[in-house]
Amino acid sequence: MNEFSLISRYFAPLTAGDEGALNLQDDAALISPTSGNQLVITADAMTENVHFFAGDNPYSLARKLLRVNLSDLASMGAEALYYLLTCVLPKNTPKQWIERFTQGLADDNIAFNVHLLGGDTVSQHGPLTLSLTAIGQLPSGQALTRAGAKAGDDIYVSGTIGDAALALHLLKGSHTHPSVETKAALLSRYYLPLPRMELGKGLRSLAHSAMDISDGLLQDAGHIARNSAVQLVIESEKIPLSPAARDMLSTNSDLFASVVTGGDDYELLFTASPMHREALLALSATTNTTITRIGRVLEGKDVCILDKQGEEMLFDSKGYQHF
Amino acid sequence: MNEFSLISRYFAPLTAGDEGALNLQDDAALISPTSGNQLVITADAMTENVHFFAGDNPYSLARKLLRVNLSDLASMGAEALYYLLTCVLPKNTPKQWIERFTQGLADDNIAFNVHLLGGDTVSQHGPLTLSLTAIGQLPSGQALTRAGAKAGDDIYVSGTIGDAALALHLLKGSHTHPSVETKAALLSRYYLPLPRMELGKGLRSLAHSAMDISDGLLQDAGHIARNSAVQLVIESEKIPLSPAARDMLSTNSDLFASVVTGGDDYELLFTASPMHREALLALSATTNTTITRIGRVLEGKDVCILDKQGEEMLFDSKGYQHF
Repeated sequence: MNEFSLISRYFAPLTAGDEGALNLQDDAALISPTSGNQLVITADAMTENVHFFAGDNPYSLARKLLRVNLSDLASMGAEALYYLLTCVLPKNTPKQWIERFTQGLADDNIAFNVHLLGGDTVSQHGPLTLSLTAIGQLPSGQALTRAGAKAGDDIYVSGTIGDAALALHLLKGSHTHPSVETKAALLSRYYLPLPRMELGKGLRSLAHSAMDISDGLLQDAGHIARNSAVQLVIESEKIPLSPAARDMLSTNSDLFASVVTGGDDYELLFTASPMHREALLALSATTNTTITRIGRVLEGKDVCILDKQGEEMLFDSKGYQHF
Repeated sequence: MNEFSLISRYFAPLTAGDEGALNLQDDAALISPTSGNQLVITADAMTENVHFFAGDNPYSLARKLLRVNLSDLASMGAEALYYLLTCVLPKNTPKQWIERFTQGLADDNIAFNVHLLGGDTVSQHGPLTLSLTAIGQLPSGQALTRAGAKAGDDIYVSGTIGDAALALHLLKGSHTHPSVETKAALLSRYYLPLPRMELGKGLRSLAHSAMDISDGLLQDAGHIARNSAVQLVIESEKIPLSPAARDMLSTNSDLFASVVTGGDDYELLFTASPMHREALLALSATTNTTITRIGRVLEGKDVCILDKQGEEMLFDSKGYQHF
């Protein structure tokens, strides 16, 4: 199969007939922006042995790649529209791999109402590397950033924290041996994050700052603290944990460090004025997304995670370091 | 150096202070489209040992990466605006490499009036892989595509064809030993393509179809033929060759196959009505870009390259195949 039949057979159907994609037959794609909106654009790469394991299921890998990028759009409050994809495939990647990979994209296109607009596919003697550029939109001037947190804000996270990090701990060969159910629950969070698109949109008018947690709650909260020039004080007891994470921690409480520094959560971390507590509960209900208030924004700098006794907890690692 | 200091020191300055880049400190970047325009977006990946050699100069590599993407924008008639960049760097990439790589981008940002908007940088035990997404704009409805060629059109190319392919032939260890000047001239075309931005913009109102030549004139002309449902007849004698390419062909005429199938030219291939011949000459003059009429579009299909005697020339390879 050559590049052109690969594109026409497996990738062109992912454009959902968008005229601007020009059926993936041209040098570039066209986007016709709608009046009053800004576009939001993000690019994330994933590479074998760093972001995923060799041999990982291509169907879920495709969905994770798309979802981690969509999560970046959600964190700005954007609605997702399109994506471009570059694939550097190992030589002799089997057709079945491509089929399952593109099936993952096809299914998530429907789930998230997005489609492919363009990209590039090459083969290489080396590890699988994928890079995706996602494009969304939001009303001009309404983007949420990491820079708007104010002293007095409440701090919230969506969903539960630490599941993916605990899954990675297991995948790397842990001495902890949880039940089959616990393991399955954690692994599903690692392989398939759920970007919080509806929550992100609803936060436009309610939050002062937002981001998604990819490198660990502690480190990512530090980005809000630094960009907003405030201190974030988080109560460890309030960090929402899944039953599976509680199960793991009950046998090894040291794993709490992984929960707050491990990353790969793709939950939203945001701050909002206490006057919006009721509105946020209503948003949580309408978007069917749990949110939990985990702390307060104070004047100052850096992040502080407090234990039950109100003492600051210290961790060896701040979060995932790429270099 | 960690990811964050790498970004703030080397990459953030490449945003040229664009507010929408949010200083590369946020999850995504913002684009505020201007009324009456469409955005044009393209993504191309380059990976070691496929698109470049291990050890290639990072300064020119950065510029080539940017330029091959800008060439895609030029081929649609778009003005270049921004780009996003994902770098998968081999572990322990030296700081000096990053410095020179980002210096290449900085210099071409000025040369082409573009800037960085976002991206991702990760490290990996594996070959260097770079993926760039370039974004441009053009007045709505004026994009040039591969699909508009009409029977009766003239066929043109910009610049000269085959230099980069002949350079690659030398780099791969040819038995041909040209003069130092010839070799230098060819290598400079291979390492540093020149995207035809001004010509592309001028062609919006003059050309029926356009694309850039990346996989070889023969194969790329085939895309116009197929997408436009026409035949492209090219006279080999009219294909513009540089003095360096002529020098190479004078010692080994078999290399003509590389000229038309080798690719990496990043010249524009376009078709236009004969009524625009004068206007195209004027555009060539004002943009300081040579253009050469190399054939005619006929009813039919496929591409035919004719020799001096008007006989069809056949080549073993149609052009670069990625798989």
